[in-house]
Amino acid sequence: MSASRYTYLGPEGTFTEAALRTLPEAATRELVPMVSVPTALDAVRSGEAAAALVPIENSVEGGVTATLDELATGAPLMIYREVLLQIAFALLVRPGTALTDIKTVTGHPVAQPQVRKWLAAHLPDVLWESSASNADGARLVQEGRYDAAFAGEFAAATYGLEPLVTDIHDAKNAQTRFVLAGRPARPAARTGTDRTSLVVWLGDDHPGALLELLQEFSARGVNLMRIESRPTGEGMGRYCFSVDCEGHITDRRVAETLMGLKRTCPKVRFLGSYPRAGVDSQALAAGTQVRPGTSDADFVAAADWLARCQDGRA
Amino acid sequence: MSASRYTYLGPEGTFTEAALRTLPEAATRELVPMVSVPTALDAVRSGEAAAALVPIENSVEGGVTATLDELATGAPLMIYREVLLQIAFALLVRPGTALTDIKTVTGHPVAQPQVRKWLAAHLPDVLWESSASNADGARLVQEGRYDAAFAGEFAAATYGLEPLVTDIHDAKNAQTRFVLAGRPARPAARTGTDRTSLVVWLGDDHPGALLELLQEFSARGVNLMRIESRPTGEGMGRYCFSVDCEGHITDRRVAETLMGLKRTCPKVRFLGSYPRAGVDSQALAAGTQVRPGTSDADFVAAADWLARCQDGRA
Amino acid sequence: MSASRYTYLGPEGTFTEAALRTLPEAATRELVPMVSVPTALDAVRSGEAAAALVPIENSVEGGVTATLDELATGAPLMIYREVLLQIAFALLVRPGTALTDIKTVTGHPVAQPQVRKWLAAHLPDVLWESSASNADGARLVQEGRYDAAFAGEFAAATYGLEPLVTDIHDAKNAQTRFVLAGRPARPAARTGTDRTSLVVWLGDDHPGALLELLQEFSARGVNLMRIESRPTGEGMGRYCFSVDCEGHITDRRVAETLMGLKRTCPKVRFLGSYPRAGVDSQALAAGTQVRPGTSDADFVAAADWLARCQDGRA
Amino acid sequence: MSASRYTYLGPEGTFTEAALRTLPEAATRELVPMVSVPTALDAVRSGEAAAALVPIENSVEGGVTATLDELATGAPLMIYREVLLQIAFALLVRPGTALTDIKTVTGHPVAQPQVRKWLAAHLPDVLWESSASNADGARLVQEGRYDAAFAGEFAAATYGLEPLVTDIHDAKNAQTRFVLAGRPARPAARTGTDRTSLVVWLGDDHPGALLELLQEFSARGVNLMRIESRPTGEGMGRYCFSVDCEGHITDRRVAETLMGLKRTCPKVRFLGSYPRAGVDSQALAAGTQVRPGTSDADFVAAADWLARCQDGRA
Repeated sequence: MSASRYTYLGPEGTFTEAALRTLPEAATRELVPMVSVPTALDAVRSGEAAAALVPIENSVEGGVTATLDELATGAPLMIYREVLLQIAFALLVRPGTALTDIKTVTGHPVAQPQVRKWLAAHLPDVLWESSASNADGARLVQEGRYDAAFAGEFAAATYGLEPLVTDIHDAKNAQTRFVLAGRPARPAARTGTDRTSLVVWLGDDHPGALLELLQEFSARGVNLMRIESRPTGEGMGRYCFSVDCEGHITDRRVAETLMGLKRTCPKVRFLGSYPRAGVDSQALAAGTQVRPGTSDADFVAAADWLARCQDGRA
Repeated sequence: MSASRYTYLGPEGTFTEAALRTLPEAATRELVPMVSVPTALDAVRSGEAAAALVPIENSVEGGVTATLDELATGAPLMIYREVLLQIAFALLVRPGTALTDIKTVTGHPVAQPQVRKWLAAHLPDVLWESSASNADGARLVQEGRYDAAFAGEFAAATYGLEPLVTDIHDAKNAQTRFVLAGRPARPAARTGTDRTSLVVWLGDDHPGALLELLQEFSARGVNLMRIESRPTGEGMGRYCFSVDCEGHITDRRVAETLMGLKRTCPKVRFLGSYPRAGVDSQALAAGTQVRPGTSDADFVAAADWLARCQDGRA
Repeated sequence: MSASRYTYLGPEGTFTEAALRTLPEAATRELVPMVSVPTALDAVRSGEAAAALVPIENSVEGGVTATLDELATGAPLMIYREVLLQIAFALLVRPGTALTDIKTVTGHPVAQPQVRKWLAAHLPDVLWESSASNADGARLVQEGRYDAAFAGEFAAATYGLEPLVTDIHDAKNAQTRFVLAGRPARPAARTGTDRTSLVVWLGDDHPGALLELLQEFSARGVNLMRIESRPTGEGMGRYCFSVDCEGHITDRRVAETLMGLKRTCPKVRFLGSYPRAGVDSQALAAGTQVRPGTSDADFVAAADWLARCQDGRA
Repeated sequence: MSASRYTYLGPEGTFTEAALRTLPEAATRELVPMVSVPTALDAVRSGEAAAALVPIENSVEGGVTATLDELATGAPLMIYREVLLQIAFALLVRPGTALTDIKTVTGHPVAQPQVRKWLAAHLPDVLWESSASNADGARLVQEGRYDAAFAGEFAAATYGLEPLVTDIHDAKNAQTRFVLAGRPARPAARTGTDRTSLVVWLGDDHPGALLELLQEFSARGVNLMRIESRPTGEGMGRYCFSVDCEGHITDRRVAETLMGLKRTCPKVRFLGSYPRAGVDSQALAAGTQVRPGTSDADFVAAADWLARCQDGRA
C-alpha cells in the first residue's frame, strides 16, 4: 500500500538511501529506489508512493537542477522534511585488492571533483571513468569491470566489496541536502527554526524585478537562505527563482512576505515550510533570531493598533 | 452646546474663515474665531468645540508648523476633512481712497512674499508694515493706522472697507490647505480618492531609518503625497516626520503599510483618513490609481491563496 | 569696504549677533544688523557685504524657512561655516523692577513656546504680546511699553536693562544653528567632520522619487543629517528638498553621491561643505565614521582595480 | 603554435564545435576538441591554446556549472566573445535505417528532456540509454551499438550517418550560449550592445547582502541579465554569484557599479565585457537603452558640475 512506500533516487547504496535511513519512519516504510529524480517524484504524484527523498543541493556542486525543475513544474508537490548528510567517500574494492593493484577507478561524475586531489596524491596514474551513480560504480567493481569505485562506505556490503580507504573528501565540510517531498497537504508543524521554500516567476518586462522580489523579503525582515535562478524554458534570459527563506508560513512575517510575492509576481509556487536540519538543541531552543519589529507579537500588536485606529480608539 | 461649535484660526475675515464657510455644515454651526492654532485645537480637546479648522500647508510658504506640531503632540486629534483654498489678495481701503493716496500698507508677514511683485510694479514707494493677521491689517486700516491692507476680498465687508484691487497674487496657483480636526473617532468614510495623515518618529541610532520608513510605503505601492520633518524638541538633529499618503486606512495596502510602520518605528500617530479636496468628479469616479498587485482585490486573493497554502490546498 | 563687512539678522542684541560674535574673525569685521534674512543675504549677493550670518534651524521650532528658501532660489550663495548656539532666555527688566511688578511681557513669537512653562509657573497672570524680535522686545521695555522682555542675557547692556532671571528654557538643550553664507567660491577646507548642504528638486511624475533620492546617499554610505521639504511655489504638492549629509564634497563617497543626484534629478544646488560645529576634539580626531567600503582609500583602490580590469591586468 | 589554436568542449561533432565554426576566425585556427570544460580551459591557462569555446548556459537546462565554476576559480580567464546557437536535434541513423527499425536510441543526458515529447509521439516503445555526449552517441550508432542517436545534424557526416529526422526540439526556441575565454587582456571593444560578466562573493555575516549587491546595479541604472548562485565550496549556505549585466566596462554606469561592488563585497572577479550575440543590426544601431541620467554624457556632465562646485564656479 502506497502510504507505507517511500521512493528515493537509487540505486541502492547511494547517499540518498543513506540519508533516507536517517529518518526514523524509514524503518517502517518500504523504501523503493528509482532510476531518476523525475521517476521518484512521479511515483508520489501518481499515488504509488507516499513520499520521495531526493537530493536538492550539494555544498560543492550546487543545486540539483533535476529536483529544482521537477518541484517547480508539473503537478504540485510539497516538502515536509530535509536531511543534511556529510558527504565522504570510501574507495571500495573487491576483497583482497591493495592500493597498488588499482589501475582503473569509477564513480559518479559528481564524485570526481570531490576526490580529485586525493587521487592525484595517492593514485596519480589511475584511469578514471564515470558511472551512472556511485552505487552503479560499485556494481561495476563487483562485476570486475573496474578495480575500485568511490561510493559511500555503506554501499560496500550491498555489493560485496571492502572499503579500502574511508573518509575521502577534497572539500572540507561537503554536505548534501535532501528533501522529502509528498503531495500537497498541511505544512509540517512550526518548530521555531524552520525553512520555507518557494518558486517565484518574475514578469519579463521589468529589469528591477529581482530587486523587488528581494525587497518583499527584506521589508518584513525575512532572511533569504538560498536563491537559485532556473530557466523557464521560454527562451534565453527568462528565469524563475527557487528560493528558501528562514521561518514558517505561519510566522506572520513570512505569511505577509508570501502574500506580497503572490500579489506582485506573475506566479508563485509554495513548496512547503519544514524544520531546518542540522540545528542543534541550543539553537532550536533559541529559535530563529528575528529583526526587531518582525516577531509574531509585533505583528499582533500592530494589527490591534490598526483596529483601534480604524475604530477611533487609538 | 459644543457639538454645534466649530473653532477656527481667527480673527474673523481671514482665509481660514473663508475656507470654513465652504463646508456645507458650517451653515448650521456656531463658528468661533480663536487667536491661535493651539487655542483653536485646545477648544476641541477640552470639548468646548466639536472641531477646528486650521491651515496646515501653503503652496508658497510650506507647512504651517504650529498645526503640524499641535497635531503631533498633546492629546490626540484626528483630521476628518480638508479644504483647499485658492489664495488671492484684495487691496482693501477705506471708501474713497485712490491708488495714488496709498503711502502705507499692511498685511500678514506670510502675505508679503505673495504680493511683493505686485507692490513693486504698482506701489513701488509704499511703506509695508506687518500685522498679526490679514484681518488685523484690515482692522488697522479701518482705524486709520494704515492706508491699505492686503486681505481676502471677503474681509472688506467685515471691516467697512472696499476692495480697490482684487485677485492679487505673485505666485500662480497659490493655495492653502486647511484641515478640520476633531477628537479621535472612526475615520471619515472611504471615497476612493483619500488621503491618510501620520506622524512617525524614527529611532535615533539608525542613519538609514528614513529610507526604511519610505520603503514601508513603497513595498506596498502606497504613494507619498507630502513629507515634512519636524524637530522632536529633544535636541538638534532629532526629527519626526509628518507624512501624507494616498489612500484610506481601510485600503489594505495602506493598512499593511501602517502596521509595518507601527512594528518598526518607535512611535506612530495616526491622524486620520479623509477625502482629498480638489478632486474633480471624473477623478473621483476613477479613484486613486494603484500599482498592479496592490488593490484590495489583490490583497484578498493573496490572503485566500495563503490560507490554501497553510491548509495544503494550494 | 565690503570684504570687511558681515551682515546678520538684526537688530542688535539678537541671538544671531551673539552667534556671529563667537566667530574669531568677527572681531575684525564691521557687523551690520539687517531687518530680515533676505536683506542680510541680498547684501552679500550685491557685494555690499562679504558674508551674512543667518539662523537656519532651531531644535525646537525647526527649519527657518526664510533662510532655506533664500538659499534655494535667487543668485547662488554658499555656506562656509556653521555656528551652534545654546538658546536660553533672560527676563530683562528696567533696573529696579521686581518679579511681582511684572504685568506685561514681550518677546519674539518663536520665544513664546520656549518660555511658556516657565511663565505658567512663575508669572501665570502676566499678559504676553509678541514683538518683531527679542531685541525689539527689549527696546520696547526700555521705552516703558512693556514691563519685561524675554531675550538673550547679552541684550541687557544694549538696552540699559537688567537680567532679572536667566537661563530660562522649557526645552532641554534648545539650540539654534546659524550659517555664514557668502558668494560662491571654493568650499571650506575638509576637516574630517564636515557637513554638506544641498537643495534637490525632484521630477514631478514619479511617486518613488524621494526614495530614489535617499538611495543615492545610502548606496554610497553617506548619512543624511537633515532633510526638509519646501514648496517650489509651483503649486500644492510640488516640493524640493533641503538636505544636509555627513562629509565633504572632496570625500569620494560624497562626490559620487552628488554626481548621482545631479544625473538623476532635474535640479541640484550645492550649498557648500563646511566644518560641523559642536564637534569635540576627540570626535574631530576620530573623524566621521564611515561604512566599510566607502572611505577614500576604498574608492581609490576600486578605481585602481577598475583601471587594471580595463587594461587586462586584473 | 598556441596563438593559432582554439580548444573546445569535444568531441568533434558537438554543438560546441558547430558554435565555434560560426566565428569567422575559426577558419584560420586549429580547432582542438577536449574531453571536458576544465581541460579545454586549462589548455588556455597553460598557454597551449589561445582561447577555448565552452557552453555557459542553456535556455532549457540552465547554467553549465562546470563552466561557471571554472571561470570563478583558478587562474583568471576572461570572456571575449559569446555565441548563441539554436539547439535542434537530428535523429541520426546508419544509412538505410527506417523509423520502424529503431529499437534503441542514445544521446547526451541533456538532450533527453529536449526530445522527450518527440520520442513519446513518434517512438513510444524505444529504449533510451545516455551517452557521454551527443557526438559519442553518434559514434556508438556508427559502431552498431544503438540504432539511432540524437545529435546536431552537422554530426552526421563525421560519423558516416544520415539524418532521418531533423529539427527536433520539444522546447520552442531552445538555445545554448557559448563563451570564448582567453587569458586576461584588454576587454573586447565596446559596441553599444555589450554584456559584462562578473563573479561576486558576499560577506557571510549579512542577510541583506544580495539585496545590497543588486542595489549597486540599480542605483546606476544597470540592468541585470543573468544571476546565478554557486556554492563557494566552504560549506552549505555559502554562495557566490555569477552575474551578467548590460553594458561595457568602459560605460561609466557599469564602471561605477563595478567599483561599488569592489568596494563593498569581499571579492569580485571581472570576467570580461563583450558584444552581445543575437542582436540584430537595428538594435545594434540603437544601442542599449539606458535609464535617463545614466548615459556617459550624463556622467560627464555631472563630473563637470562637481568640478565646478569644488572650484566654486557652480
